[in-house]
Amino acid sequence: MNIGFIGLGVMGSGMARNLARAGHQVKVYNRTRTKAEALEPDGAIVVDRPEKVCEEADVLITMLADDNALEAVIEDDPEFLPALPRGAIHMAMGTISVAKSKRIEEIHLGHGHKFIAAPVLGRGDVAEAGQLAIIAAGAPDVIETCQPLLDIMGRKTYYTGSAPYSANTAKLCMNFMLAAAIESLGEAFAVVRKAEIDPELFLDLVTGTLFPTPVHKVYGDMQARDDYTSANFTVTLGLKDVNLAAEAAEDLNVPLPMAGVVRDQLINALAHEEADQDWSVVGRVAMRNAGLAK
Amino acid sequence: MNIGFIGLGVMGSGMARNLARAGHQVKVYNRTRTKAEALEPDGAIVVDRPEKVCEEADVLITMLADDNALEAVIEDDPEFLPALPRGAIHMAMGTISVAKSKRIEEIHLGHGHKFIAAPVLGRGDVAEAGQLAIIAAGAPDVIETCQPLLDIMGRKTYYTGSAPYSANTAKLCMNFMLAAAIESLGEAFAVVRKAEIDPELFLDLVTGTLFPTPVHKVYGDMQARDDYTSANFTVTLGLKDVNLAAEAAEDLNVPLPMAGVVRDQLINALAHEEADQDWSVVGRVAMRNAGLAK
Amino acid sequence: MNIGFIGLGVMGSGMARNLARAGHQVKVYNRTRTKAEALEPDGAIVVDRPEKVCEEADVLITMLADDNALEAVIEDDPEFLPALPRGAIHMAMGTISVAKSKRIEEIHLGHGHKFIAAPVLGRGDVAEAGQLAIIAAGAPDVIETCQPLLDIMGRKTYYTGSAPYSANTAKLCMNFMLAAAIESLGEAFAVVRKAEIDPELFLDLVTGTLFPTPVHKVYGDMQARDDYTSANFTVTLGLKDVNLAAEAAEDLNVPLPMAGVVRDQLINALAHEEADQDWSVVGRVAMRNAGLAK
Amino acid sequence: MNIGFIGLGVMGSGMARNLARAGHQVKVYNRTRTKAEALEPDGAIVVDRPEKVCEEADVLITMLADDNALEAVIEDDPEFLPALPRGAIHMAMGTISVAKSKRIEEIHLGHGHKFIAAPVLGRGDVAEAGQLAIIAAGAPDVIETCQPLLDIMGRKTYYTGSAPYSANTAKLCMNFMLAAAIESLGEAFAVVRKAEIDPELFLDLVTGTLFPTPVHKVYGDMQARDDYTSANFTVTLGLKDVNLAAEAAEDLNVPLPMAGVVRDQLINALAHEEADQDWSVVGRVAMRNAGLAK
Repeated sequence: MNIGFIGLGVMGSGMARNLARAGHQVKVYNRTRTKAEALEPDGAIVVDRPEKVCEEADVLITMLADDNALEAVIEDDPEFLPALPRGAIHMAMGTISVAKSKRIEEIHLGHGHKFIAAPVLGRGDVAEAGQLAIIAAGAPDVIETCQPLLDIMGRKTYYTGSAPYSANTAKLCMNFMLAAAIESLGEAFAVVRKAEIDPELFLDLVTGTLFPTPVHKVYGDMQARDDYTSANFTVTLGLKDVNLAAEAAEDLNVPLPMAGVVRDQLINALAHEEADQDWSVVGRVAMRNAGLAK
Repeated sequence: MNIGFIGLGVMGSGMARNLARAGHQVKVYNRTRTKAEALEPDGAIVVDRPEKVCEEADVLITMLADDNALEAVIEDDPEFLPALPRGAIHMAMGTISVAKSKRIEEIHLGHGHKFIAAPVLGRGDVAEAGQLAIIAAGAPDVIETCQPLLDIMGRKTYYTGSAPYSANTAKLCMNFMLAAAIESLGEAFAVVRKAEIDPELFLDLVTGTLFPTPVHKVYGDMQARDDYTSANFTVTLGLKDVNLAAEAAEDLNVPLPMAGVVRDQLINALAHEEADQDWSVVGRVAMRNAGLAK
Repeated sequence: MNIGFIGLGVMGSGMARNLARAGHQVKVYNRTRTKAEALEPDGAIVVDRPEKVCEEADVLITMLADDNALEAVIEDDPEFLPALPRGAIHMAMGTISVAKSKRIEEIHLGHGHKFIAAPVLGRGDVAEAGQLAIIAAGAPDVIETCQPLLDIMGRKTYYTGSAPYSANTAKLCMNFMLAAAIESLGEAFAVVRKAEIDPELFLDLVTGTLFPTPVHKVYGDMQARDDYTSANFTVTLGLKDVNLAAEAAEDLNVPLPMAGVVRDQLINALAHEEADQDWSVVGRVAMRNAGLAK
Repeated sequence: MNIGFIGLGVMGSGMARNLARAGHQVKVYNRTRTKAEALEPDGAIVVDRPEKVCEEADVLITMLADDNALEAVIEDDPEFLPALPRGAIHMAMGTISVAKSKRIEEIHLGHGHKFIAAPVLGRGDVAEAGQLAIIAAGAPDVIETCQPLLDIMGRKTYYTGSAPYSANTAKLCMNFMLAAAIESLGEAFAVVRKAEIDPELFLDLVTGTLFPTPVHKVYGDMQARDDYTSANFTVTLGLKDVNLAAEAAEDLNVPLPMAGVVRDQLINALAHEEADQDWSVVGRVAMRNAGLAK
């Protein structure tokens, strides 16, 4: 298939490379051109304007950081949408808001395009290995058309329904649960430290019994060491995602009390100039609340 | 060793049986005598009064349900403590409060006994298989003396420190994290249902990606089916444990905001006559809050 | 002074009438023209386009319901801003977001206008009587120019500082405190009812001792009667304001845990089709959580 | 009537004095004897053992600080209860838990005594002036017997029902609402400070408009000055009362989310060695959470 791909960050690069290596024609655009050029050895075609990826595209894939980045491409650039052929599919794979997903779908329908949402779970190395978990939603026939691409990028596709926004909702729910797990671990660590239990030992207990997950290992390790400087996901991004989950829930009239708790802790982190630390710094916030840190 | 064992519930029976089978002399007492007699084929000696297990005991093991049950044996029965030889060890393996653990330790010291706390993680079948995770705390030499017994009952011992109460604290922190995980999953399910996503599919996503744990599978399954009748752990017991965790945290001056949230949801369940349902019924509470259930 | 006045709802009508009666030239515009015409006997001049109030205006007053209504007039109508003379003052008196206040200020500065925010506390009859409490912020000299107008509309002006947004922030903080008071009263009523105490008696106690305020009387009365149909302020509007307060706090990096609690209760009300009830219906939500209502 | 009075703190002294001055025979006991002797000029009879106040008493009044103090007198002293004549009334006027109120009632019934609960609202000067608000509950005829005494001590009696514990419940609800008001004011102050609004001006706004109450003035003044050293009610006492309210609510199966929030803030204060500061120090906690204080 002819694929246009925009957004070559740590995730997008691996995804686009795998598509190109699998033999698809992949036109790539990235604001920082060197990231696009890095894909040329794999067969990707580098273009110098976003709308150029649209020409002759069967599928447009966006892997952009957030609503604003997607909006800048799709809505703010008047030449972009007309360049995408009627009947083409836009597959939005970044983590965006439910409201933005609905809005973009509406816009595309108005241009005779098809739209599916397909946010992913996994990090850069997983993307590189083509082993992402993909949450996909949209019209079944459109999903079917894209399935070969999804199978190249991911190890499994979770199909949440025919409304594209349902995939975004499910993704935000996952991030919400992740935030809640990190927060509860952070609160537990504060108790544990006050009881003079070795945090590393407690983490062994947590991951050796009830919660043997990479999530608890990775974020728990930062909290056990009380070092959040090598950010996996920053406080700023974490708060954005928790807010998106809370907004999605509010749109559906669902109270989400745990999101409120995490939100307050992340704002506390912002107030202490920890915006660029990993969001597991809520463990430090819990320590501060317990008088263990400044 | 000569072991006295009190508390032959679903956990204690397996633990006592394994000790007896390993060749230790195990005197057992249980209020319901038939549960004690069931261990006779394995070599256990059934006695008809709690204090009888104390006679000549090197180690007294209690696996009682809660503070009240332990208090009834240790504090309320005037014949019990004098029956336990000076120098004997009491290993308290039930989930009790930090305050009770400290109190019992004090009482034993006054009688010339030693005291360690060794609460466990795992369920009946795991106890039966001698594969429990054990959190132990107390004087290192006392722990060392008991280690052969711990190794019979469990697959691994997590040693949290020389103060017995630290093991109880760690156990309550685990239960707190478990409660938080169940609550966050319940909240997510409410969002998911409102977005018309299949709950079973969402559970596959949760357990197939970020949270591949038995906890998420077992409790998530009840929430996905919205059926909490085959209680693994009731609302009443869950609220008791969340309260114990909150009290332990308060004693250490640690705020525990997520415990507050879970507590309110469990009380909501009590108010809807769900005391005997599994505590994952907080998923139903979240549904009610979202207008999805009565 | 020459005044342009837009927004003749229950509050704005009284405010504009008082200005006209005091001898100022007041040009009025309202989408529903009859509301404007009702002010003609008091000397107001009715115009048929929003921008017409701007002509020759010294001061433009807007008393619009929310951000969207203000945006529609100021930002979306290309003829509006050019019609307002350079040097004219825009006094925004509705309850708007901090973000919108900052944005509007910026726009006006670009057109050579001056901008102050002056949200009010009080209801229709208070506005009619010229007895509002006004929270004003902006450049001191601009406030000084407007003070005679503020003194006509209100009984007292609280000057929060030279940054207009500070007045909006203070107003949102008042609304937040109001929401918290209503929520805490609602929670207390649920306890009181369960203890079989007469809610009316409890309200007498509340308002006869610690909280002798109109707020506790008015909203407490609805909660004591469990009847929220004659809405003073709807759930929809209440949630909007609580969200605005939470956003303003987030922008300033201030956690606001009580706002999170109220927000969840208001969303619970939305989920139970109570959007148009008075926001004191959080008392019903508390009853539901306690199993006292469906 | 013959009155026995125990507990001559800042509240009890004024209450007992007023009873003595009104011509009742009042036997007083206090651990610190000088406080009892200070009432002799008013006609009170000082005794040197708690049970001595019981002799020939028609009514025993306790105005003790908490459950423990009451328990020490009523339950732990084996000579006390037998000394109180059958048919005598115990009127418990301190702020005690619902559980303790029920327990004490039960004990008295077993001794042929009558029991009513009559906690009060007001401070030392109000007690001295005989202007307390009294919340009373118990059998109507017993209340009627005591009404003349209540009318001496208070300006108004709020009768909550025939179950004594209902008065304790209502009192705890009042304290809960007070705590919530202080907390919401503290959160608002943090926002206000970050927006560079003068806290004193904001307090004027709060007390000059929606919340013209002594409560908002007294506690708001401490928060505006960020000085909590002249404690009206300490963090320790505040947390005790919030916990009692939460327990009373839990016993009635009522979730009380705002109590959870306040509880966490008070524990935060404890963790920062502010146990003896006024409980309005939750305003400092809010400042800390916003990065405004250490």
